[in-house]
Amino acid sequence: MITLFELAGADPERRFSPYCWRIRMALCHKGLQFDSVAWRFTEKEKISFAGSDKVPVLKDGAFAVHDSPVIAAYLEETYPDRPSLFGGTTAQAVARFVMDWNEMVMNPSLFRILALDIGAHVAPEDKDYYTRSREARIGMKLEEFCADRDSRIDAFRSLLAPLRRTLANQPFLSGEDPAWADYVIFGSFQWARCVSPAKLLEADDPVYLWREKMLDLFDGEARKAVGYPV
Amino acid sequence: MITLFELAGADPERRFSPYCWRIRMALCHKGLQFDSVAWRFTEKEKISFAGSDKVPVLKDGAFAVHDSPVIAAYLEETYPDRPSLFGGTTAQAVARFVMDWNEMVMNPSLFRILALDIGAHVAPEDKDYYTRSREARIGMKLEEFCADRDSRIDAFRSLLAPLRRTLANQPFLSGEDPAWADYVIFGSFQWARCVSPAKLLEADDPVYLWREKMLDLFDGEARKAVGYPV
Repeated sequence: MITLFELAGADPERRFSPYCWRIRMALCHKGLQFDSVAWRFTEKEKISFAGSDKVPVLKDGAFAVHDSPVIAAYLEETYPDRPSLFGGTTAQAVARFVMDWNEMVMNPSLFRILALDIGAHVAPEDKDYYTRSREARIGMKLEEFCADRDSRIDAFRSLLAPLRRTLANQPFLSGEDPAWADYVIFGSFQWARCVSPAKLLEADDPVYLWREKMLDLFDGEARKAVGYPV
Repeated sequence: MITLFELAGADPERRFSPYCWRIRMALCHKGLQFDSVAWRFTEKEKISFAGSDKVPVLKDGAFAVHDSPVIAAYLEETYPDRPSLFGGTTAQAVARFVMDWNEMVMNPSLFRILALDIGAHVAPEDKDYYTRSREARIGMKLEEFCADRDSRIDAFRSLLAPLRRTLANQPFLSGEDPAWADYVIFGSFQWARCVSPAKLLEADDPVYLWREKMLDLFDGEARKAVGYPV
């Protein structure tokens, strides 16, 4: 019995963590059944059994694991007979760079677009925590941080240049078929989709076309998510 | 009989193309013997047999191939019994993103540091061609483009943040051992090393430590190159 603890908003079906989306897609990729538990920022004790204060947390029988790349590696090792999530150890290693680029370049740029929208969707009991912790991190008010959204969207699109060229050359980051590197990047787009009406991509962008394919995977798993169909 | 055509400077042993370095390292990785031919920017007719006006060009018997990722794929397919250059098709695909990031983010930043140094080292017959073609591309004088080198170096170091985190986590981009993704990034450092005294990295930078390991590979192949030991 696998259970995935996922960040949820005021609507418990609004699952908006980019890192949880990586794992939801990875579980689908492996064809593994799982239960999902909605978790809020302030429910630290609910996941303390895993030695973590953040999601995603995955419970597999008596075993608990947290941190998305660690969970992914756990799934690959534990279910080797299922479709490979990484496509080999070298691909797993190279995907680490994709992940570091995602977290250090793409997500900070996206957060300047999404920070207020996220605040609008967190659970009532999380609102103070979210606002205080994020404003402490960024050193300003969320309203100020998210001002001038149009220029932030332009900046975000520019940052995607290398991703855009890769996806103009091949169907998925992982080649002919999607794998971990795709789920890593896609998680961030799903983060946006679940909380924000911002139009991040133009319809003729190779990244948009790839995102459409990702939304279609696994019977439209990600497309069905509560969010904004932009 | 394999022959690699490589960009060379006034000193024919100064081989400073990042894309040629990718292939030199790839040939070493495969353990393939090869002859090297020094080529200058203006010797277009010398490589026209390959249908290209740029190096690297690789001639393998009667077969000619150009463009570094195409050459790499050719070597992998033609010499499958040698150590794998990519570590599988998924790793090859994911490395495409590393390459696109290298060419669209890292190299343009590096070129603002190196452009004048390159000009100082090109062959006499290439000087006009180099200066004219680059100034047309950048829309200004090389001297102006390369002004304020210290701030350019700071900007370059900042851009390396995701690479730095990856290399703080694992010995090589490709995991425990180097492969194509490493050669792609390393080619750019070798570009710099062969023409410029600029100190790009601090000695405690994980990228510096990785570069040292790359310089040691294949009996110090890259360390022996004519250039600046910085």
